Amino acid sequence: MNARFEQQLEFLVEIDKVKQIFRRTLLMDQSRTENDAEHSWHLAVMAIILGEYAATPSLDIARVVKMVLIHDVVEIDAGDTYLYDEQAALDKDEREQKAAERIFALLPGDQAQEFRALWEEFEQRDTPEAKFAAALDRFQPLFHNYKTQGASWKQHGIRCEQVLQRGQQMQAGSPFLWEYAQTLIERSVESGYLAP
Amino acid sequence: MNARFEQQLEFLVEIDKVKQIFRRTLLMDQSRTENDAEHSWHLAVMAIILGEYAATPSLDIARVVKMVLIHDVVEIDAGDTYLYDEQAALDKDEREQKAAERIFALLPGDQAQEFRALWEEFEQRDTPEAKFAAALDRFQPLFHNYKTQGASWKQHGIRCEQVLQRGQQMQAGSPFLWEYAQTLIERSVESGYLAP
Repeated sequence: MNARFEQQLEFLVEIDKVKQIFRRTLLMDQSRTENDAEHSWHLAVMAIILGEYAATPSLDIARVVKMVLIHDVVEIDAGDTYLYDEQAALDKDEREQKAAERIFALLPGDQAQEFRALWEEFEQRDTPEAKFAAALDRFQPLFHNYKTQGASWKQHGIRCEQVLQRGQQMQAGSPFLWEYAQTLIERSVESGYLAP
Repeated sequence: MNARFEQQLEFLVEIDKVKQIFRRTLLMDQSRTENDAEHSWHLAVMAIILGEYAATPSLDIARVVKMVLIHDVVEIDAGDTYLYDEQAALDKDEREQKAAERIFALLPGDQAQEFRALWEEFEQRDTPEAKFAAALDRFQPLFHNYKTQGASWKQHGIRCEQVLQRGQQMQAGSPFLWEYAQTLIERSVESGYLAP
């Protein structure tokens, strides 16, 4: 077996661990929380279905899909950082950079470079693709929360202003989704899913 | 909210159920079987990483990714059909066609048509993209079986000739992967992971 293929398989074995990294978001049926592999899959399908609502209509959806597919592999080492955990947010970047350093380096040189760059692009949110990917990454858990009567928000004592503050990042990637998200937040407060 | 967006969200809610459809394949750590969402995510990353081994080098990898992302949504209604279950195979097509009819129709007309066609393309395995997607769909569980000392093969009493027979479909999409898969099968028999 050639060394290149061996490295590729090693990476594909390593990322199987993504299936065991659990998030705070509940499945729609509320039976359990979802894991990073399921979350990434859902975002990838969302990117394809909702691409027409991106801020930049000419963006490259295939690139968004690639980005969301690998955006959470760093959590193999760094763990999932809950969006509203201000303490964990302090060293999140450091933990994730270190993880990216190790995990993408499992790939052959050219692919290691490509995927590391794609992950950095996602983190920096400067390109239309990264902005839309980040908007989906914010929209999906909010939508799950709304659909589960705010179960995860309630469990973690999250308030409306926190959701608005962290959610507003959607605006840059998709004004349409952010407008709709604000409607969901309003309805959530009215319905008692989310503390005012 | 416009009707189009409402239909798109309904589809995205419906496919959350894919996270609860469990396959026979074990995770690499052997702690549990994987579900269809995790499997589809893993295949999508594989398509990107291993695209260079496709039988047709000029194929459209973004299309392969889209195909593997949605190839198993029909199992929401039809359930997972184990590759080696000859009884369940008898009405698999009928069950899945009926499921495709209902599930893709949740989407707005243009997207319903696009995704239904993409799923049919995957099932028919005529295009380079569908052949490569199908090769990955065969390769991934075999690779997991090898990496877990044949745990799932042993549990279901699968023999070498069955794995060879169902695996050979890889040839059309990726002669390279099929050659490597045969090496894994040989080694599996030698190591006692797979009954001769």
